[in-house]
Amino acid sequence: MTTTAIPDPLRRRARTHGDDVALEFEGDVLTFAELDRRATACDQLLRQRGLGSGDAVATLLHNRPELVAIAHGGPRGGRRFAPLGARLTAPEVAAMLKTCAAKVVFCEAATRDVVVEATRGLAMDCIDVDEIATANEIAAESEDRDFDLHDTHTIVFTSGTSGAPKGVRLTWGNHLYSAMASALNLGLDAGDRWLCCLPLNHVGGLSILMRSVLYGNAVELHRRFAPGDANAAIRARRTTIVSVVANMLQRMLDDDERPYPECLRAVLVGGGPVPAMLLERCRAAGVPVLHTYGLTETASQVATARPGRDDAGVGPPLLFADIRIDNGGDDAGVGIAGDIEVRGPTVSPGYVGEPDHPASGWLRTRDRGWLDERGCLHVLGRADETIVCGGENVHPAEIERVLESHPAVAEAFAAGVPDQDWGAVIHAAVRLTGEVSPAELETHCRAHLAGFKVPRRLLPVDDFPRTAAGKIARREARELLYTASNRDVR
Amino acid sequence: MTTTAIPDPLRRRARTHGDDVALEFEGDVLTFAELDRRATACDQLLRQRGLGSGDAVATLLHNRPELVAIAHGGPRGGRRFAPLGARLTAPEVAAMLKTCAAKVVFCEAATRDVVVEATRGLAMDCIDVDEIATANEIAAESEDRDFDLHDTHTIVFTSGTSGAPKGVRLTWGNHLYSAMASALNLGLDAGDRWLCCLPLNHVGGLSILMRSVLYGNAVELHRRFAPGDANAAIRARRTTIVSVVANMLQRMLDDDERPYPECLRAVLVGGGPVPAMLLERCRAAGVPVLHTYGLTETASQVATARPGRDDAGVGPPLLFADIRIDNGGDDAGVGIAGDIEVRGPTVSPGYVGEPDHPASGWLRTRDRGWLDERGCLHVLGRADETIVCGGENVHPAEIERVLESHPAVAEAFAAGVPDQDWGAVIHAAVRLTGEVSPAELETHCRAHLAGFKVPRRLLPVDDFPRTAAGKIARREARELLYTASNRDVR
Repeated sequence: MTTTAIPDPLRRRARTHGDDVALEFEGDVLTFAELDRRATACDQLLRQRGLGSGDAVATLLHNRPELVAIAHGGPRGGRRFAPLGARLTAPEVAAMLKTCAAKVVFCEAATRDVVVEATRGLAMDCIDVDEIATANEIAAESEDRDFDLHDTHTIVFTSGTSGAPKGVRLTWGNHLYSAMASALNLGLDAGDRWLCCLPLNHVGGLSILMRSVLYGNAVELHRRFAPGDANAAIRARRTTIVSVVANMLQRMLDDDERPYPECLRAVLVGGGPVPAMLLERCRAAGVPVLHTYGLTETASQVATARPGRDDAGVGPPLLFADIRIDNGGDDAGVGIAGDIEVRGPTVSPGYVGEPDHPASGWLRTRDRGWLDERGCLHVLGRADETIVCGGENVHPAEIERVLESHPAVAEAFAAGVPDQDWGAVIHAAVRLTGEVSPAELETHCRAHLAGFKVPRRLLPVDDFPRTAAGKIARREARELLYTASNRDVR
Repeated sequence: MTTTAIPDPLRRRARTHGDDVALEFEGDVLTFAELDRRATACDQLLRQRGLGSGDAVATLLHNRPELVAIAHGGPRGGRRFAPLGARLTAPEVAAMLKTCAAKVVFCEAATRDVVVEATRGLAMDCIDVDEIATANEIAAESEDRDFDLHDTHTIVFTSGTSGAPKGVRLTWGNHLYSAMASALNLGLDAGDRWLCCLPLNHVGGLSILMRSVLYGNAVELHRRFAPGDANAAIRARRTTIVSVVANMLQRMLDDDERPYPECLRAVLVGGGPVPAMLLERCRAAGVPVLHTYGLTETASQVATARPGRDDAGVGPPLLFADIRIDNGGDDAGVGIAGDIEVRGPTVSPGYVGEPDHPASGWLRTRDRGWLDERGCLHVLGRADETIVCGGENVHPAEIERVLESHPAVAEAFAAGVPDQDWGAVIHAAVRLTGEVSPAELETHCRAHLAGFKVPRRLLPVDDFPRTAAGKIARREARELLYTASNRDVR
């Protein structure tokens, strides 16, 4: 039996590459040694609070260095790091904290009120991130600890099929194999500098941090995405790799049309479909764009186009990932569409509070696609009704449940309507039983849903198209929303 | 539970990078697609012979493309690849074949006689490598099979403490983590081309093949090391990385003093001590030399100097390796010498025919060394009497046993005597009971020992210095050999 423990890579980097830049944030530069000290301070703070192996550490923070320190120090000693989106509402946060059974949640000034409200009645410590700095002063060097590859390291929330967000358990092994597979595709260079302007509660942002401590490369972290800031990072501070969703890249190109410097070697575009026009525009402008397909459940990339190869679709599966197209129980042949399934060591063992996936089993992705004769994957879209809006996954059930919780709403239906900028935007139709203004319904939504989930349009209907059994005929209802949105345009 | 199976990397490379160069040998170029076809042919041949999971496939071959095909196709389906050194004698080969319980052994014209003699009386198929080419013609594409990280993939023989060579079991996981750790130190570039002029039955050569299918880089393979050929590969065919032992590098620099081209980015020197003069000479000549420390039991590198950092000793441990200096049961502090111990996922689960190492345990390396305040390892030499001769490890007991098997030899003693070119050369002292000429004893040795193990000098003695218990006082006996060798020089 080979050991499955790996030395803590940040601690190791701090020792062997202590003076190298680990993180740059708003002009402040942290070396690996300094980042390790902060992670150690966080670890000690959590130990003082009595958190041990298996306990979850949640955060409700915008991107900031303290969040990076918690991402590395939080999971030490077998704890689990559970970053939540800083834009979520108190009811959303409360549901997630309960799901992952968090013992503590870190907040900041901007999120304190939401956390206080969300944790009301819950036995949960709410810690201001500034306390890490205080702990820092008293922190002695803690002993080295290993990460076991099979231990859950992170819990990342994603939209579930029922509309209740699910906590994806990612092991240190999942992160490690994901980082390795990415490097085997993109190459590794000591001078690499990865721009992270995705939120760190998303696997796309989080995986940049994991790669950084494994590769030893610098990360420039942005509090939030702004096209001008991203362009400045690339032009002035020699970014070599950046991860974005299509809408972000579009806005970056709109912001500044000048060619990027040569040092930019990969622009990974994922989190949903990429318009062919955008890919064309990138190619024409010499932007080294690489379309990628990934999932929270696979700790990021599954398939990624290869540098310099002009791959079709999202490229071939990365080295450790097996992809199968399921066509009604059979393995679909080349060129035949079906449900995308994934297998390999980057696949999460399961969701918090649910039984593990079978280790040798295939993960059903809820995406449809096909493989071409060169082995490249083409993604057609979601197999279910999940709406992909600017890289965020939202399930209609979540919106519908909130709308139907309003006393004046008898029934609700939500769907994504195609949108040039965001891929899709959320529209909803409501059958009302009482008097309610659109503004009042919107306020109700805003109290329960993060801003990006609030329907852009609310269409009152007298009734819905129905199935023989009397349920909403969802395909026809979606058509109804599409038609209404087209009418607006004309 | 995360899966521990990984897709066959050669098959994967063949599919996604089929036209890329995998191997170059004496002017012949093999793509990944062609190498996969040959590995598949080898797999099918072995299946036809009835070999299944757990069965060992041995080889007695010089470096050649067929050996590479067997290295990849042999272990498919859970079999074990056991490459033996082409210079070994029939008795040595027979002992190894018995140890690893090989079902078949591949030979070539140059090794056929030895294999026939070694397998006499053993239930073992002897296959000429040319049969792979025949199988090739009938080979259909076999189904994809995974490698389980915990399965033994390779058996590599190394000198044991008792003098009987031991078969080190290396799992696919050992190879994978070793390759990844090496890449995290050296970087990964799509244009890399690794020169392999080490024998493939050594972990130093073998690990180049494993890296190649994982990284997707080309390997230039040489049948045997020749300084001029190695220099030509670097100068004319753009080698970027080469692995050598000190003596090889010395001879390469002696052969041609011109500076190497810029594309050569790493010269890994391992397999034993490297004279400070040689390191100095390399630095002066701009050779990007990186001293490395590795073991068969760790699937190659444990610690390696970092590119561009001018590290002391053999550099810091690679990312997945933990190093401890054991000083009589305690962890030695910085700067204090002791026995080097290693832990991590590259450490072999154990030796063929012996119980597994404990998974969480430390591997005792039989080398002595110390860690400096920057975390770099300094290797002082063997903790036991193993002789390191031009990168080959030889235990004195093996030589002594062969000498004592001659009827005229009552007692024998062997040791390594320092040598400028080879690090050490083997000298032996014999107490005779009968009449025997030095030439006759040498012939006896040559019949039982590979050429590099045959003592360069045989010193007849009337008696040995002895311990109180009457055993040979080995330290004093070694002094006796040193003194005699110095007398020769003067």
